[in-house]
Amino acid sequence: MSWLDAVAWNADGLVAAIAQDADSGEVLMMAWMDRTALARTAELGEAVYWSRSRGRLWHKGETSGHVQRVRELRLDCDGDVVLLRVEPVGGIACHTGRRTCFYRRLAGDAWQAVEPVLRDPDTIYEGERRE
Amino acid sequence: MSWLDAVAWNADGLVAAIAQDADSGEVLMMAWMDRTALARTAELGEAVYWSRSRGRLWHKGETSGHVQRVRELRLDCDGDVVLLRVEPVGGIACHTGRRTCFYRRLAGDAWQAVEPVLRDPDTIYEGERRE
Repeated sequence: MSWLDAVAWNADGLVAAIAQDADSGEVLMMAWMDRTALARTAELGEAVYWSRSRGRLWHKGETSGHVQRVRELRLDCDGDVVLLRVEPVGGIACHTGRRTCFYRRLAGDAWQAVEPVLRDPDTIYEGERRE
Repeated sequence: MSWLDAVAWNADGLVAAIAQDADSGEVLMMAWMDRTALARTAELGEAVYWSRSRGRLWHKGETSGHVQRVRELRLDCDGDVVLLRVEPVGGIACHTGRRTCFYRRLAGDAWQAVEPVLRDPDTIYEGERRE
């Protein structure tokens, strides 16, 4: 049995994938992987997701250069979420140019952006998006 | 507009919710929330999920006492994932009795359990499960 068979793929053949900065512990993003994406991630040592919006494999950083080098892959108890402990090259995970996609914090009854934009997305992307 | 309207609920009316230990940075689990669960989480200051398997609200720790006190709520750029930075009372998030649900690490071509069971699940639960 392949280690890929231990994953509880959902009805769409996907598994949720959380990327965490291996050094800082910061949670960077959540995306999805199909079987090919997860296999490629392990082979390549860089995060490869399945882009639901574009309907294709998405090698994170393929356009921006902001690849995520995978130090460790983890699977949860249910087998339906993987955790990637990564080294985020370039230090930017979010298509908005921020370090993390989780840049809005609930303050009272409003979400407030609390993470700075490190780079103008227009200067780093030609088409790559968060998903 | 309510802050809850900024959330991009999926077709089932749910949003993915990642719980992270606010002190250690460890990612503890991922579960799902419906609108009521997220509203209750914010009101109560403790994590309340929607259990897909049981089809009901699930106040984490309601049976075990292992509640997750919420220090901070974050929303990602797409609005379809929330991140809870929590204080995990009792130090156990997983129904297997481990600190985190992500206790299996990929080693070569096999998942290996790398986190110790801190408590026998039979001694801490009467019916509460991971989801």
